Amino acid sequence: MTDGTIDGIRLERGNAIDWIVLDRPEAANAFSRGMLARFGTVLRDLKADGAPVIGIRGAGKGFGAGMDLGQYNAEGSPMEDVTRLSGYVDLWRDIWRHPKPVIVAVHGYCIGVAAQMASFADILVVAQDAAITEPTIPIGGGFIAPTWVHQVGGRRAKEFAFLPGNSIDGRTAVEWGWANAAVPAENLIACVEELASRIALVPPGVLAMKKRSINRAMEAAGWDQALSAIAESDAILHLEPEVRRIRAQLATIGLKATVAEFKGHGSQEIFKLHGAGYLP
Amino acid sequence: MTDGTIDGIRLERGNAIDWIVLDRPEAANAFSRGMLARFGTVLRDLKADGAPVIGIRGAGKGFGAGMDLGQYNAEGSPMEDVTRLSGYVDLWRDIWRHPKPVIVAVHGYCIGVAAQMASFADILVVAQDAAITEPTIPIGGGFIAPTWVHQVGGRRAKEFAFLPGNSIDGRTAVEWGWANAAVPAENLIACVEELASRIALVPPGVLAMKKRSINRAMEAAGWDQALSAIAESDAILHLEPEVRRIRAQLATIGLKATVAEFKGHGSQEIFKLHGAGYLP
Amino acid sequence: MTDGTIDGIRLERGNAIDWIVLDRPEAANAFSRGMLARFGTVLRDLKADGAPVIGIRGAGKGFGAGMDLGQYNAEGSPMEDVTRLSGYVDLWRDIWRHPKPVIVAVHGYCIGVAAQMASFADILVVAQDAAITEPTIPIGGGFIAPTWVHQVGGRRAKEFAFLPGNSIDGRTAVEWGWANAAVPAENLIACVEELASRIALVPPGVLAMKKRSINRAMEAAGWDQALSAIAESDAILHLEPEVRRIRAQLATIGLKATVAEFKGHGSQEIFKLHGAGYLP
Amino acid sequence: MTDGTIDGIRLERGNAIDWIVLDRPEAANAFSRGMLARFGTVLRDLKADGAPVIGIRGAGKGFGAGMDLGQYNAEGSPMEDVTRLSGYVDLWRDIWRHPKPVIVAVHGYCIGVAAQMASFADILVVAQDAAITEPTIPIGGGFIAPTWVHQVGGRRAKEFAFLPGNSIDGRTAVEWGWANAAVPAENLIACVEELASRIALVPPGVLAMKKRSINRAMEAAGWDQALSAIAESDAILHLEPEVRRIRAQLATIGLKATVAEFKGHGSQEIFKLHGAGYLP
Amino acid sequence: MTDGTIDGIRLERGNAIDWIVLDRPEAANAFSRGMLARFGTVLRDLKADGAPVIGIRGAGKGFGAGMDLGQYNAEGSPMEDVTRLSGYVDLWRDIWRHPKPVIVAVHGYCIGVAAQMASFADILVVAQDAAITEPTIPIGGGFIAPTWVHQVGGRRAKEFAFLPGNSIDGRTAVEWGWANAAVPAENLIACVEELASRIALVPPGVLAMKKRSINRAMEAAGWDQALSAIAESDAILHLEPEVRRIRAQLATIGLKATVAEFKGHGSQEIFKLHGAGYLP
Amino acid sequence: MTDGTIDGIRLERGNAIDWIVLDRPEAANAFSRGMLARFGTVLRDLKADGAPVIGIRGAGKGFGAGMDLGQYNAEGSPMEDVTRLSGYVDLWRDIWRHPKPVIVAVHGYCIGVAAQMASFADILVVAQDAAITEPTIPIGGGFIAPTWVHQVGGRRAKEFAFLPGNSIDGRTAVEWGWANAAVPAENLIACVEELASRIALVPPGVLAMKKRSINRAMEAAGWDQALSAIAESDAILHLEPEVRRIRAQLATIGLKATVAEFKGHGSQEIFKLHGAGYLP
Repeated sequence: MTDGTIDGIRLERGNAIDWIVLDRPEAANAFSRGMLARFGTVLRDLKADGAPVIGIRGAGKGFGAGMDLGQYNAEGSPMEDVTRLSGYVDLWRDIWRHPKPVIVAVHGYCIGVAAQMASFADILVVAQDAAITEPTIPIGGGFIAPTWVHQVGGRRAKEFAFLPGNSIDGRTAVEWGWANAAVPAENLIACVEELASRIALVPPGVLAMKKRSINRAMEAAGWDQALSAIAESDAILHLEPEVRRIRAQLATIGLKATVAEFKGHGSQEIFKLHGAGYLP
Repeated sequence: MTDGTIDGIRLERGNAIDWIVLDRPEAANAFSRGMLARFGTVLRDLKADGAPVIGIRGAGKGFGAGMDLGQYNAEGSPMEDVTRLSGYVDLWRDIWRHPKPVIVAVHGYCIGVAAQMASFADILVVAQDAAITEPTIPIGGGFIAPTWVHQVGGRRAKEFAFLPGNSIDGRTAVEWGWANAAVPAENLIACVEELASRIALVPPGVLAMKKRSINRAMEAAGWDQALSAIAESDAILHLEPEVRRIRAQLATIGLKATVAEFKGHGSQEIFKLHGAGYLP
Repeated sequence: MTDGTIDGIRLERGNAIDWIVLDRPEAANAFSRGMLARFGTVLRDLKADGAPVIGIRGAGKGFGAGMDLGQYNAEGSPMEDVTRLSGYVDLWRDIWRHPKPVIVAVHGYCIGVAAQMASFADILVVAQDAAITEPTIPIGGGFIAPTWVHQVGGRRAKEFAFLPGNSIDGRTAVEWGWANAAVPAENLIACVEELASRIALVPPGVLAMKKRSINRAMEAAGWDQALSAIAESDAILHLEPEVRRIRAQLATIGLKATVAEFKGHGSQEIFKLHGAGYLP
Repeated sequence: MTDGTIDGIRLERGNAIDWIVLDRPEAANAFSRGMLARFGTVLRDLKADGAPVIGIRGAGKGFGAGMDLGQYNAEGSPMEDVTRLSGYVDLWRDIWRHPKPVIVAVHGYCIGVAAQMASFADILVVAQDAAITEPTIPIGGGFIAPTWVHQVGGRRAKEFAFLPGNSIDGRTAVEWGWANAAVPAENLIACVEELASRIALVPPGVLAMKKRSINRAMEAAGWDQALSAIAESDAILHLEPEVRRIRAQLATIGLKATVAEFKGHGSQEIFKLHGAGYLP
Repeated sequence: MTDGTIDGIRLERGNAIDWIVLDRPEAANAFSRGMLARFGTVLRDLKADGAPVIGIRGAGKGFGAGMDLGQYNAEGSPMEDVTRLSGYVDLWRDIWRHPKPVIVAVHGYCIGVAAQMASFADILVVAQDAAITEPTIPIGGGFIAPTWVHQVGGRRAKEFAFLPGNSIDGRTAVEWGWANAAVPAENLIACVEELASRIALVPPGVLAMKKRSINRAMEAAGWDQALSAIAESDAILHLEPEVRRIRAQLATIGLKATVAEFKGHGSQEIFKLHGAGYLP
Repeated sequence: MTDGTIDGIRLERGNAIDWIVLDRPEAANAFSRGMLARFGTVLRDLKADGAPVIGIRGAGKGFGAGMDLGQYNAEGSPMEDVTRLSGYVDLWRDIWRHPKPVIVAVHGYCIGVAAQMASFADILVVAQDAAITEPTIPIGGGFIAPTWVHQVGGRRAKEFAFLPGNSIDGRTAVEWGWANAAVPAENLIACVEELASRIALVPPGVLAMKKRSINRAMEAAGWDQALSAIAESDAILHLEPEVRRIRAQLATIGLKATVAEFKGHGSQEIFKLHGAGYLP
């Protein structure tokens, strides 16, 4: 059963799992203001009713392209930017604190803030050929990769963040500990649904406490504190002259030409080209 | 040399390693009150004498089946339950704070609180076909998996905890970072003994400080704080109506029929059935 | 372009990356007092000018053999020893807090405090046949492995630290999450330089903030606190009678005979000899 | 200007400060479900408009009597109780994270969860004769005093919490560091309004960042982590047999007779009776 | 009722409070090995039976003179010293984790490790003329004052620790937040007993959880982590040449002459002599 | 003995204490770039030689007026501003980590970043009529008060920070726990020197370890983590439009007229005007 798509969000109800579908494929599921608001409402409403498990996935060719660039108001004040950026984190915290298990299923592209959202999943399953990707044009930073540290460690978070447009596929995401499993894209939904059908056998109160208790362990490990200044980090970079210059260039020579300036191999490709690999 | 089995605990003395053997195979090494008390005494006595390394393993078909169900007193008060559950953690902390290195060797089944104990090992070696397992019947929670977070991360701890009777084998335990190595079951003891014979060359004072210093780093990472409310989490669930219902059902239809209600694939089986895997 | 070697440190300037080369191969790049001082100066000078990325590597057969034993003053006071040991950590913190990304490239041997330094790299690339090694003669401790806990976990840090002369190769270092990648030794420099050429496209201010922000997440996870007593741990062991005895023996029977007393298999070798391995 | 009282909450608008008035004097401002919901809505609406400072005070004889006993559902499940109790903390966190400074003004009685709310104030001004009070009948616990630890220390939090119906006046609240100042009750509102008129001169963006930055320091000190299991603590006690017995007694012999059983001197009274005091 | 004094410890049983009396006045209640062992046993036994509150006080002219100097084995190894010093902290942790409230009553002198023990009290009442004192002869350090930081802040902990033989009276201890109250010495016991009689009205399970929950908040604030290297700090100083010199001097010129070398005003006396004070 | 004033810093050598004197009275000891560099050099040089205690005080009418406004480069990039601001904190950390005790003596005005520096003192003695003051013109924020949280708590840090030009005198600084003692201004230096003469009796190694160990306790309490984003907080505000507006106004109407806009009662004055006070 489906409620139809409202503001880019579709709710698909099931017995074991309700899917919140990011459904704005015409914009590569980039998060618009309306979409975020709707996402928050749907998530909140699922506290009181619906299936025992929540899934989040993208419609179309990928999970999500990240922020809708139109949301950034270059004319706004720095503190308005901090508030806007904190708004994302607050919304993802609603995933983290939701009484139900939330499984995120990532296929295709998963860029920038979409990868940040995925970091707050309880369980994260990815397609083997998914591409989890840093923005190619370096007009921000210090906002996404710090949310990866508690899963992949500081060193891989830095590797990922320092190369423009860096990208890892689903298998690498599992090796790094970011995702729980990588399956062929065509099996992604079925796989999550089978997981959910097993989880649904556990009483909701038991699930809620298991999640609370593991969350507490993550918070004792500094998870929440790690996020406390990421909005400030990004907001400052938005005002950095070199970033403003790139942004101005975007307006003049266009996206394609600007991307071309920064495009190139990702770190894992470079490692492989130089002979890295577990096997002889 | 062996001291004989007292209250389900046998001490096997060696030159490099003294083994504390969980030796109550008739009850699948489930921890009874007496067994825990004896375990604590033996561990304490090994501070002052014995070999430089301590090993812990199970006798019979597996390492341990977890709590002895008879220990839970459904008539007791919630705070008595909190006290009982904290008692386990306090005992495992004696492993953690022991001046000698403690190596835990897991073979066969390792269920619930037995897997919690193993989380406090300094070094953990497992048989490749060991089965580290969540209880199948969901009558508690928030007590085991939070002790895994500092080794396997929050996401895998949730994956493990959310499916009833979820289980990973020895190889997966190593991939996840929970265990140091997985060897064929028949080599497990010899492998640990060779490790111990190497460790025994280091002066005891040096070993004690190396352990203290690495422990301090783990505690700075929130290890101890992560455990501070796990007894409360479990005790609350013991009082949840749905849990009482399942417990009542156990008394009427029996263990086998109740297990059947919750049995099914584990998460890693589901992932493999849907095509997960590192290799083509 | 090269500035020549001063006090065992050579600076090789490039466009994308400036290499600080540990260049005292006659002493296996063991850190002498002068070398450390020079290293600090060069690093500090690179804040204000030079290429956008910094590389650190060793000249000759390996990355570094650790402390220059001559630096330890057995006649000095314990607090002088604490001060000396803290001096290493303070210097590595200068790597950690440097505004530029620092990539460490490890080939050949990497022993003791050299492995500690590598733990502070932003990105760490190793040769597949590198040997990251604990000192064979146990005359200290609690100083190196605690700096590994945030990358490899407490259990592997203990495994590594407890066996005298324990050693892992480059591939294992990646599996454990200590290093980002392991490539054939002959490709190591080229690989890092390609990484650097990609990173160099990102504006320096953006890189600096990305590093600050990920560092903050690591510090929230207890990274800095984990290091606060490691100097004390080691200094105490330097005064332990058994350690003094070994040190005295070194002076009488010599290095070779003393090493022979402690030499043997490393933990990963022991595991493999007993059948460990991911593949059938 | 006033919007009238809705669900026990009245909003009084001013230039420098908007007052949220707890206005249910007929129930001693005990928090009912509707009142809490309304409080949350009003607080959220003040993010976008209104005066630069927010004040919270009680109408009638005191600030608030704490929970509305009717809210506790003795028939509900333990996890429903945890959810209810967490709901309070989540609401107070909205005070903590609000972009505007929030000044709480306490007069008269301030009991239980009302004192918990006050702990989340940015600035807290109290009447000298205010009575900040633990519930007299011990049917819960571990929920209020832990939120005091970061202001008054653990020892005074324990002193306050361990005596039934313990109470401190406004002056003691300042000596302990819980409140910023204690003024005669008749000056309380004017005092806060003068503070607000001074604060209102600072640009809102500057105030918002000052608050974010000081909050970050408190969170680094463990403020948020300190709250993570307080709901569990209280929920467990609600199920403790002795607590159920007292609750049953309440239903039979009534409030007055039950209170009489626990009434007596507070800790500070006892200290004074025994000669404590700073002055000769 | 009294059990008689065994190994310097006397247990006085009451209805509301059981007193553990440090009763070795001939040695100024200095902690000997036997006394500490007995203290631990008595404390443990009071978990299962006895009055709902525990009190600790000293017999004779003061609370305690600290360590029994005879306990320090100058011939022992540094790690033996670390173990001995950790033993104190472990014992005080038994106070902290005891299910019952523990009130410490300090009169007269309270020196060194006796002041450390008092830092672990749940509630701490002092005589106005008590003298809480640092050892006059500086032959150790970094062991006592760090346990004060969470009550009095870092700055006062340093003030207290840096002057040889520094001392504060009971009133200052309250001003600093170290003690809950200071009463005339003759009222000390009666005051604590009245507190206990009020606390005893609260059901034991409720008290136990209140204590657990406030302890958790303190641990979130770093209380436990703050103690993790204090044994190492002191043990290192025991080996510092200047300390050994003073200790040797003690053996030759005697206690009195050595004390005379370090004796002088305390910090608070110096402040008062220079005109400090709250009142004109 | 005096070395003469270089770049606004004078070193006065003594037996027990060496004074670093902020000696640029013509600019109210505002920190210029040169002064900060010189301060760092002098402090570093005192590690190896000089008296056992270090004092810091101001020459002329007050301790210091804070930042030299000329240092802020409104044309610089945000990341240059972050670097500049972090530079202050790094310098104060050199006080914190210095092996010798550092006593700061504050008289007269102590504004903004001068009060931040004082927060890093080991011991802090103030004149009773000192005025510790927030900048009157709100053109920054989130940089000073967060360094107060660990001494005065979050609530007083907010009170202090939210009112423009807020100020406390020496006595209040002691009541709040920020300073150790307040003495009449004419006794300030003598008082500190007597303290130092007592401290100087303790062997330097013992003092160094006492400081390290108490610092560790403060760092376990989050002290260092609390400082990690304060530079970012302030740098963002420097770019806030309302702040730029005030800065522009400063350039047009001048300092005096701009100050007049924000001047008024401090919080403690307001409290006193409304009848606050401990005494009747």
